[in-house]
Amino acid sequence: MKVKPLGERLLIKPIVEEKKTAGGIVLPDAAKEKPMKAQIVEVGKLPEDCPLKVGDKVIFNKYSGTEIKIDEEDYIIIDLNDILAKIEE
Amino acid sequence: MKVKPLGERLLIKPIVEEKKTAGGIVLPDAAKEKPMKAQIVEVGKLPEDCPLKVGDKVIFNKYSGTEIKIDEEDYIIIDLNDILAKIEE
Amino acid sequence: MKVKPLGERLLIKPIVEEKKTAGGIVLPDAAKEKPMKAQIVEVGKLPEDCPLKVGDKVIFNKYSGTEIKIDEEDYIIIDLNDILAKIEE
Amino acid sequence: MKVKPLGERLLIKPIVEEKKTAGGIVLPDAAKEKPMKAQIVEVGKLPEDCPLKVGDKVIFNKYSGTEIKIDEEDYIIIDLNDILAKIEE
Amino acid sequence: MKVKPLGERLLIKPIVEEKKTAGGIVLPDAAKEKPMKAQIVEVGKLPEDCPLKVGDKVIFNKYSGTEIKIDEEDYIIIDLNDILAKIEE
Amino acid sequence: MKVKPLGERLLIKPIVEEKKTAGGIVLPDAAKEKPMKAQIVEVGKLPEDCPLKVGDKVIFNKYSGTEIKIDEEDYIIIDLNDILAKIEE
Amino acid sequence: MKVKPLGERLLIKPIVEEKKTAGGIVLPDAAKEKPMKAQIVEVGKLPEDCPLKVGDKVIFNKYSGTEIKIDEEDYIIIDLNDILAKIEE
Repeated sequence: MKVKPLGERLLIKPIVEEKKTAGGIVLPDAAKEKPMKAQIVEVGKLPEDCPLKVGDKVIFNKYSGTEIKIDEEDYIIIDLNDILAKIEE
Repeated sequence: MKVKPLGERLLIKPIVEEKKTAGGIVLPDAAKEKPMKAQIVEVGKLPEDCPLKVGDKVIFNKYSGTEIKIDEEDYIIIDLNDILAKIEE
Repeated sequence: MKVKPLGERLLIKPIVEEKKTAGGIVLPDAAKEKPMKAQIVEVGKLPEDCPLKVGDKVIFNKYSGTEIKIDEEDYIIIDLNDILAKIEE
Repeated sequence: MKVKPLGERLLIKPIVEEKKTAGGIVLPDAAKEKPMKAQIVEVGKLPEDCPLKVGDKVIFNKYSGTEIKIDEEDYIIIDLNDILAKIEE
Repeated sequence: MKVKPLGERLLIKPIVEEKKTAGGIVLPDAAKEKPMKAQIVEVGKLPEDCPLKVGDKVIFNKYSGTEIKIDEEDYIIIDLNDILAKIEE
Repeated sequence: MKVKPLGERLLIKPIVEEKKTAGGIVLPDAAKEKPMKAQIVEVGKLPEDCPLKVGDKVIFNKYSGTEIKIDEEDYIIIDLNDILAKIEE
Repeated sequence: MKVKPLGERLLIKPIVEEKKTAGGIVLPDAAKEKPMKAQIVEVGKLPEDCPLKVGDKVIFNKYSGTEIKIDEEDYIIIDLNDILAKIEE
């Protein structure tokens, strides 16, 4: 199932980072903060001067967007306005 | 009874997916989450560059739109702005 | 008494449908949901490309508009924006 | 004391209708609903295509406007936008 | 101390009217309703077609504006938009 | 440390007036109302026709702006829109 | 990991000042007020006439922006509109 965002929206895959306590114990998902990093999976109709493309990693407003499942995986459909920054490795 | 949406609205038929527990038991409607997938049944006056047409499957904001019954079936009249993405099978 | 809506408003007469329980008992008005269907009785100054005219049946946002009585009958003065769709019999 | 509304406002005199119970008892003012009918007493600077003039009877949004007393009589200064319809006897 | 309002604002001096009970007892200030009448003391930069000038008496929205004391006297700095009407004696 | 406001903002120094009770007792700061008078210390990029300049005394909306300390002194960074009037001695 | 803000946003590093009680005791972080001073680390697409650049120190609205960690250090991604002033040493 391919999901094509409409208008100035993007489909992103949140990056859940392994969190360890000081003692090295990996925190369960629930105890982790909502992820703020994600990878762009699909884009809608973005402005021409927008520097984002499929595959880029971004920082996004973690309280925004609509969570959806595609083939049992978690994704978010989010407005361009809620993408705060691009991560340049 | 044919319902023709006005302005930038669409008439959609929610797609309710069968939900099974891990043990394979089909969940009753009430226990299911509000559907987010739907099929477009009728469109109002959409912008020319809008990629949506009758028959397309979409993902929509499940808390938006107005629920109506037509011949005892559930439909939703929804603003174009609350259609998040198009599903390309 | 003739009531002529001002601006982009319409005067509509709600269509209250008889509701029967499974056992065929007609529900009293109070138990019924607020009607969503109505007939257009009078129009104000609507945009030229608006497809609505006196006599048309419509679906409207049941929480909108202002209820008024004219000669002891119930009517609603409502903004064009709260008319969701036109019913084509 | 003459009161000249400013901008797109009108000075209206609410029409309080005598209300009788089924048994014909005239309801005291307090038991009555807020009036929705009024007569236009004075107008501010209304748009040229506005069909309203002093003396016209109108239906207005009963929760809008500012109540004032002029020579012990009740009036309301109200925005044009809160006048819903014109009554044509 | 002269106070010159900025932008589309006015400096007004509320007119507190003596209120007498039916029995002729003058009500203390506290028991009185907030005044709605005032005289214009100073104006800021008003639109050219605005009919108001220093000395005019007006009716204003009693919940608007900012109360200030100048030489122990009460004044209000208020937006033009909250002046509802002009009083023509 | 010199603070240069950005955009249509000003840096102002509130003028705290000595308040005496009827009996002549100087009120402690806490008992005083928030000051509404201030002097302009620095301006950002104000519109050309704006009559305000460094050194002017003004009346401002006491619930607006952001309080900051510069060298242990209290200042406020405030939007031009929240400056209500200019004081002309 | 390099973070490039999108649109009219900036990446800033809050400046946490050592706070001492009257008796000279350094306050723990928690007891301190949220910082209002910061240094600009990276800028997005700012207007041409904007006087801010990487390295500048600024005063910002401490309740705005999104806190993020980069290599265990605290940063904030903030809208240009929430930068109140530039500090000129």
